Amino acid sequence: MFKNLWKNRAALVEKNLLVELNKNPALEKKLFDAMKYSLMSGGKRLRPILLMAAADAVKVNGENFLTAASAIEMIHAYSLIHDDLPAMDNDDYRRGKLTNHKVFGEATAILAGDALLTLAFEVLTRQENVSPEILLKVIKEFSTAAGAAGMVGGQSIDLESEGKKISMSTLQKMHLGKTGALFKAAIRSGAILAGANSMQLDALTIYAEKFGLAFQITDDILDVIGDEKNLGKPVGSDAKNNKSTYVTLTSIDTAKNLAQAAVDDAVDALKNFGAEADFLRELVKYLLGRNK
Amino acid sequence: MFKNLWKNRAALVEKNLLVELNKNPALEKKLFDAMKYSLMSGGKRLRPILLMAAADAVKVNGENFLTAASAIEMIHAYSLIHDDLPAMDNDDYRRGKLTNHKVFGEATAILAGDALLTLAFEVLTRQENVSPEILLKVIKEFSTAAGAAGMVGGQSIDLESEGKKISMSTLQKMHLGKTGALFKAAIRSGAILAGANSMQLDALTIYAEKFGLAFQITDDILDVIGDEKNLGKPVGSDAKNNKSTYVTLTSIDTAKNLAQAAVDDAVDALKNFGAEADFLRELVKYLLGRNK
Repeated sequence: MFKNLWKNRAALVEKNLLVELNKNPALEKKLFDAMKYSLMSGGKRLRPILLMAAADAVKVNGENFLTAASAIEMIHAYSLIHDDLPAMDNDDYRRGKLTNHKVFGEATAILAGDALLTLAFEVLTRQENVSPEILLKVIKEFSTAAGAAGMVGGQSIDLESEGKKISMSTLQKMHLGKTGALFKAAIRSGAILAGANSMQLDALTIYAEKFGLAFQITDDILDVIGDEKNLGKPVGSDAKNNKSTYVTLTSIDTAKNLAQAAVDDAVDALKNFGAEADFLRELVKYLLGRNK
Repeated sequence: MFKNLWKNRAALVEKNLLVELNKNPALEKKLFDAMKYSLMSGGKRLRPILLMAAADAVKVNGENFLTAASAIEMIHAYSLIHDDLPAMDNDDYRRGKLTNHKVFGEATAILAGDALLTLAFEVLTRQENVSPEILLKVIKEFSTAAGAAGMVGGQSIDLESEGKKISMSTLQKMHLGKTGALFKAAIRSGAILAGANSMQLDALTIYAEKFGLAFQITDDILDVIGDEKNLGKPVGSDAKNNKSTYVTLTSIDTAKNLAQAAVDDAVDALKNFGAEADFLRELVKYLLGRNK
């Protein structure tokens, strides 16, 4: 049931991404193609799934918020395009396919990222089933999480840390920004859209923080013990690039224990929710066994 | 009075840009410095000035909307950083100063642009003196204008047109996106924030379109007959880069006539407004005599 719901909702998201992309089409075809290429290149659709599941946990059908869920996936897609650029991580492959700039060139890749980020906010304004006050709160969640105090800030710490041994606290600050902030925005936004009360929102925020932590630690572990074919990208890139990770700063075993503890904490944060939060419980446990 | 009001309001905008930049500071210092460098590097502050002047024209003090005015300047600043990148126009100087990537490196320049674009939407959510419904309309204006159907789309046409002779209609489409869309969003947003009725909004939209046209034609003329010291960048770059412009597709004299006609049309669009639209009338006439 868990895997099926995930699959069905990911399909809904993918369908809606195309609908939104076509509503106000790009002035120029190559730009449109580049946006579509990265947006429709698969992926787990984890952030939209989390947004919808958080609404479910507050007993409102998450599919009411498919528009906002699509918007957060656009922000994720933009961030991957820019992260892969030659001036950044200089990656040629992502999910087993050539990266955006390898197909469309660097200039168009930069613009496709810019356009997807901007489109996310346009799409957000189209979210129905919710009051303008609440929608503004969600726009604030998204913009704060994606910007200099969140995702972009985390990427900047990452760049400045290249080739240096960094402390555990810098590593944590980097990941809270780079991946944690957007997970948190997804979950909090789903809860806010569904009209969560402050106790529910606080509990889901803790869940989100622990989810982000478990995601990052398991990501670092996969870069060591993962399978290239499943991941769609080379393993061992962190070690090759001298990157500090949860594994290099501790050990594989310690990292596994830290991941388990984060998952336990995430599940514990949901103790006052009923079966309507089962999907979130399953999802965070899935991180421990994931192979991509 | 016209020049003084412009100067005073530009100073208000600059003060507020710093306030907004510091409200939710970047996680990483170099990123913050890069954002501040471009945001505070001068310029005419034309888009915030237009936003405020459009509110004035509807008899609401434009300074009530300083927050939204600052947000649109952030979008403009981001677009300049990304346009100057090596993969785009590869410019070393802007307003007589080194471009962002020449000072901070390409990766940080990309991120500083990303962060300023995102910050614009965060800042917009902080605009007071207005209902959530109206603020959502303004977020829609900004995001539509800045994205693939507007500014980014225009830049993409520009890239794809490099070294080619393009038609007048492609040139117009490019500029409607690249510069026109954001001018229009500035003016329409000021009017919407001030509660303009639909007749006022329609008239100001025509003014905005003619303003954008006059701006672009005079920009093309300045690239031929302007003074490098005033402009803060080399002249003759359009010819050097084989760019089609209003001057290359017609002649200096025809371009001057087209600019004059656009200014006349812009002033004419304001015929049902009183003295409260005098600033907008002066501003579009100023374009004809500008030297930077």
